[in-house]
Amino acid sequence: MSRQRIYLDWNATTPLRPEARAAMAAALELCGNPSSVHQEGRAVRSVVEQARAAVAAAVGAEPAEVVFTSGGTEANALALAPGTRGRDGQAVERLLVSAIEHASVLEGGRFGADRIATVRVDGAGLIDLAHLQALLGNGPPALVSVMLANNETGTIQPIAEVAKLVRQSRGILHVDAIQALGKIEFRIQSLGADMLSLSAHKIGGPKGVGALVVAPGMSPQVLLRGGGQEQSRRAGTENVIGIAGFGAAALAAHKSLESEAVRVRALRRRLEAGLRQTRGLVVVGADAPRLPNTTLFAVPGLAAETAVIGFDLAGIAVSSGSACSSGKVQPSHVLAAMGLGSLARSGVRISLGWSTTEAEVDRCLEAWRKLSGTLLKGSDETQLERF
Amino acid sequence: MSRQRIYLDWNATTPLRPEARAAMAAALELCGNPSSVHQEGRAVRSVVEQARAAVAAAVGAEPAEVVFTSGGTEANALALAPGTRGRDGQAVERLLVSAIEHASVLEGGRFGADRIATVRVDGAGLIDLAHLQALLGNGPPALVSVMLANNETGTIQPIAEVAKLVRQSRGILHVDAIQALGKIEFRIQSLGADMLSLSAHKIGGPKGVGALVVAPGMSPQVLLRGGGQEQSRRAGTENVIGIAGFGAAALAAHKSLESEAVRVRALRRRLEAGLRQTRGLVVVGADAPRLPNTTLFAVPGLAAETAVIGFDLAGIAVSSGSACSSGKVQPSHVLAAMGLGSLARSGVRISLGWSTTEAEVDRCLEAWRKLSGTLLKGSDETQLERF
Repeated sequence: MSRQRIYLDWNATTPLRPEARAAMAAALELCGNPSSVHQEGRAVRSVVEQARAAVAAAVGAEPAEVVFTSGGTEANALALAPGTRGRDGQAVERLLVSAIEHASVLEGGRFGADRIATVRVDGAGLIDLAHLQALLGNGPPALVSVMLANNETGTIQPIAEVAKLVRQSRGILHVDAIQALGKIEFRIQSLGADMLSLSAHKIGGPKGVGALVVAPGMSPQVLLRGGGQEQSRRAGTENVIGIAGFGAAALAAHKSLESEAVRVRALRRRLEAGLRQTRGLVVVGADAPRLPNTTLFAVPGLAAETAVIGFDLAGIAVSSGSACSSGKVQPSHVLAAMGLGSLARSGVRISLGWSTTEAEVDRCLEAWRKLSGTLLKGSDETQLERF
Repeated sequence: MSRQRIYLDWNATTPLRPEARAAMAAALELCGNPSSVHQEGRAVRSVVEQARAAVAAAVGAEPAEVVFTSGGTEANALALAPGTRGRDGQAVERLLVSAIEHASVLEGGRFGADRIATVRVDGAGLIDLAHLQALLGNGPPALVSVMLANNETGTIQPIAEVAKLVRQSRGILHVDAIQALGKIEFRIQSLGADMLSLSAHKIGGPKGVGALVVAPGMSPQVLLRGGGQEQSRRAGTENVIGIAGFGAAALAAHKSLESEAVRVRALRRRLEAGLRQTRGLVVVGADAPRLPNTTLFAVPGLAAETAVIGFDLAGIAVSSGSACSSGKVQPSHVLAAMGLGSLARSGVRISLGWSTTEAEVDRCLEAWRKLSGTLLKGSDETQLERF
């Protein structure tokens, strides 16, 4: 008799929220093109614009500031281009990124590799502000891309301080807020960001839709040209069904953000207390501000891939870090950047969400107890006690 | 008492096929990320790969040749980049496009405006092969982009002849097959195309998903970088629900292609016979090979936008040409390129699909009779008879 599967990989992608599923089911029935002037077209246009307002509201922006994209990767690619002009009309020709950014940011969008410099992070996974300041001072105004929360560790970056430095140097600040959306409250203005990347599938919307939120006065370089969609900022017929789901998920996630954060944080406390019974186990970034739902733990000598497969066989979906590399097993660049290179193949990520229960957390701990007993056997580092 | 709406704007976008709706509804229930190694991830991966096989089969390609994108515009942008290498490893640095291409091709993707030359079309809307040959001979090997069927007129281009010329000049051929897919049978090899753009929402799939089919030996320049998705040819978490719908639509459209073509062609014959009762009315491209479902008609002096609104008020959705310009009313570049510049604001497109009935065609003709009586009044060019 098989027990129900437990999904604890919410940072890779979340199940659809009921609100998103309902909005998408309704959109399946519409047949118009949002660019068509007839009744069918206008009906679909209205769905897109409602969703735009919901996404804007979730980050304290105006609807006109939201440019829908095919996801976070495209939002990052749209934001990161040489020639992008800030409020003073000056075009930036170099890019600074933190060492723990997502692969789609590390690749630098449309910047050549020789135009990209990397800002260090400290042992807690927080950006080294002195290093950022030094790099900013060492050249013309730069485009700076720093994520609000890291997808592997959940570490929350001090964006307001980053923004102050970027503004002083007359640069432009892009914030990848993909992993933070729906988990912590933020507003584009109080962050001080000029552009924000968002993604639907991290908040209970569908995969394949996202947005770049562009503050007034900013003009990112168009990536997809053709039809005049998205106020000529992003051509291509809109992913109407996906956008409808994104809007509904944004609304639902934003509404329940505070209560979910409290609930999920308590579950994570229980999870981490249990995990810490394993001798030598490190909860990465535990001393830094973190998203309430994310635990990245590592044990010296543990092969994360094997652990993930073991959890999977026990009916539990967890991750060995980022899922964005198509199943390729690679050491974590995030742990390496934090000076934890020896653990870079040993990190297991457990991420919780709105449907996660205490019973699921307990079953996960039970599975880890058995699993670690096998995987760490002989390393004499295991101390499995009843927790 | 309002009669049911009639949708005759299938070239702008189609209603979802039942098969696509069912596939998408099933995909709504899956929660994994296709890049995750656990069971939930593998389940979603399998949905994506099944869809890939279906899309490949519809154009006679291998699944590995299909790169999913966020739609036709992105597929065109991916295909059209300087530096793209053909089979002999030589990179192309210039682009030739026909004058009647979609806006996303006319903009040239990532080619600078000074690297793009335009190939003329004749009065029937067919590419001027002599002009193409002259342009090909006048410089290094080029990337050539010619659409298989035009979205406004339905005109089918002689791609095999284009391919012969391109191959002789050691160029690369990209074919925008977006409007042709599901309406006429074709295979990438017999066309002689090196890259094919496809879009789901033209065949009864959802908006916001498409593909670039890349023949073996071709290496388009990556547009979206980051995760290793799509065999590192297109980063970004896959639009799983959209891709599921695309696959199901491709399968269904391909299966019923021949019977639908026969049925729809008969309906169009009826439609055009009725329309031709209006004195001065021209069916554009009527003497060229055309898609079976598309009629673009024009009457001198007719304001197409007014006609579209009139049809809409009569309960019928038609178009004034391309819907891809976000409702902007612009003269048709296609008619202008055909030497029909005086009609460029007078073209009305009626496009039929799998659910179109004879009764709908007759109601459309009835609406046109009333409408043309008003719109063309006084022009003394109207001769409305019972047809």
